[in-house]
Amino acid sequence: MPGEFDLIKRYFAASSQDAARRGDGYAITSSAFQRQVVLGPGDDAALLQPTPGHQWVISVDTSVADVHFPADAPPHAIGHRALAVSASDLAAMGAHPLGFTLSLTLPSLDEDWTADFARGLHALAERLDMPLVGGDTTQGPLSISITVLGEVAPGMVLRRDGASAGELIAVVGRLGGGCGGLRCWQAYQRGRSTLIDHYLYPYPLIAAGQALAGHASAAMDVSDGLLADLTHLCRASGVGAVLMLEALPLCEGLEAHFGMAAARDMALSGGDDYALLVTLPEASLPQAREALMAVGETLQVIGHTCVGSDVVDVDGQVLTAQGWQHFNADTPAGSSS
Amino acid sequence: MPGEFDLIKRYFAASSQDAARRGDGYAITSSAFQRQVVLGPGDDAALLQPTPGHQWVISVDTSVADVHFPADAPPHAIGHRALAVSASDLAAMGAHPLGFTLSLTLPSLDEDWTADFARGLHALAERLDMPLVGGDTTQGPLSISITVLGEVAPGMVLRRDGASAGELIAVVGRLGGGCGGLRCWQAYQRGRSTLIDHYLYPYPLIAAGQALAGHASAAMDVSDGLLADLTHLCRASGVGAVLMLEALPLCEGLEAHFGMAAARDMALSGGDDYALLVTLPEASLPQAREALMAVGETLQVIGHTCVGSDVVDVDGQVLTAQGWQHFNADTPAGSSS
Repeated sequence: MPGEFDLIKRYFAASSQDAARRGDGYAITSSAFQRQVVLGPGDDAALLQPTPGHQWVISVDTSVADVHFPADAPPHAIGHRALAVSASDLAAMGAHPLGFTLSLTLPSLDEDWTADFARGLHALAERLDMPLVGGDTTQGPLSISITVLGEVAPGMVLRRDGASAGELIAVVGRLGGGCGGLRCWQAYQRGRSTLIDHYLYPYPLIAAGQALAGHASAAMDVSDGLLADLTHLCRASGVGAVLMLEALPLCEGLEAHFGMAAARDMALSGGDDYALLVTLPEASLPQAREALMAVGETLQVIGHTCVGSDVVDVDGQVLTAQGWQHFNADTPAGSSS
Repeated sequence: MPGEFDLIKRYFAASSQDAARRGDGYAITSSAFQRQVVLGPGDDAALLQPTPGHQWVISVDTSVADVHFPADAPPHAIGHRALAVSASDLAAMGAHPLGFTLSLTLPSLDEDWTADFARGLHALAERLDMPLVGGDTTQGPLSISITVLGEVAPGMVLRRDGASAGELIAVVGRLGGGCGGLRCWQAYQRGRSTLIDHYLYPYPLIAAGQALAGHASAAMDVSDGLLADLTHLCRASGVGAVLMLEALPLCEGLEAHFGMAAARDMALSGGDDYALLVTLPEASLPQAREALMAVGETLQVIGHTCVGSDVVDVDGQVLTAQGWQHFNADTPAGSSS
């Protein structure tokens, strides 16, 4: 069995130069993709060549089957999603992605499943220009842990604790699709639709994060739900917030499918959206919009920061974070730091 | 429950400057320990300040309960061991440790267990001067995935593929204690002894790895068993090897406890030793020994490389790698790349 399990390795040697040389089926041969990888998977560790003068950005996220995603989701989507969730943290820091390590725990050897998972993972890795640089495959309940590595120029990093009172609060991307898509997936025979793809295939807003660096005062990604994450940002920055609920950028089709009240609830508390939540001085709005337009993204202003510590609506009513709704409500949530 | 689970975070904010400022119970306050951590756990990602001119070294290892370690081992040892196993890969590259990310999956909230685990983890992190820079805690079957981050000056890295025919093969550290210690742990009411501590508390030979950089032609750590790992090194370098079985540095007490035949089998195939296996030109031996002596380590020559691809004993008999013996022989092994 260890020998058989070793076969899995070839699916995850894909982005190393060695794999490219060997011509393995999943090799990614773009030399641009490899420019900072001195040594990929296969030795005791990988070697990366950093950009002089930059800082490292590092984050880890774990996705457990039937806690963070349905175990019966398409393996291709599970692979994509696991990397997207981690890479979204690089986007939220305004960082340039460099590579990632994968720890994959599989209940058994299923070559078809693994090949499809690897295709989904590597397809996103190639789009984001961030190769797999190290991996470990073990046997156990299905779980994926990915540590992403990136770089940022000092002073260009987007932190949570930089907001001041009297700034705008804005969102890049759309809200509620993660939660709404999952409910559709569960309800409709696990088919596919635009809404379902919002859940299965979130796209990390890397280019938007980089575009906002130098314009935004604070940023984070919306993974736990807008209210929960805005509360985190406000707490870190020592400010309060006023939200204009009518301004929330709802995911396409969400209102039509669920009605406005449920759609807004999902946007506020649903989680799994991987939009970017930012604060910025009003004077920076034009430049921020211009920088985002250059990468095909737009900014939706949804409120403003204020002195205080609560998140309230325009009538002054306190909005309490419900946290993210797990796709399985019986299963306790995880927490990441 | 998410709220309760969040409590766990405080055990793993230990090495951030913020935690040190807040005065949390597990804060590590040494400023030297923090010198390269610009931003620790708590934001979307951590920020590290690299040393100009160095390369990044990255590796991931996952330890699953009842696959890679007994679930009833002391939590303190589980925490120590999970970091030691990953950090050993930095030692094998001759790298300087900088930090690590932790993905911890726990079956349930057990504060005593978690506190003890965190103490074991952080105690080793402090000895190795490598803070926790990011973490994710999820609920599920007990599993620990650690990605270690380090640095190395270009040209000083120890790779597996640098050995040439006609060089010495040597080991730093002792062999067989991982396997022998585990068998004692299983046999003797899970007590403690020097041999058991070899299994529960392996120490990554970071200083030895750095001392060997510039002297050794190739290196790797012995995690899967000497024969399996020497076979990996020979294959990567395109050489064969002649082993002097009498020269193997057996762990203290191993022969007395198990007899010579079993002790040697454990040294050859037992795994979990985290010794360093190196090759070096004979002319480099005196300098390598001197560099190791400065960090309190010694080098034991156990054979030499040769033209070919087999690993043989001094009589020319081919030695076949048995792979590492899992502590639970019924459970298939994992594989790391």
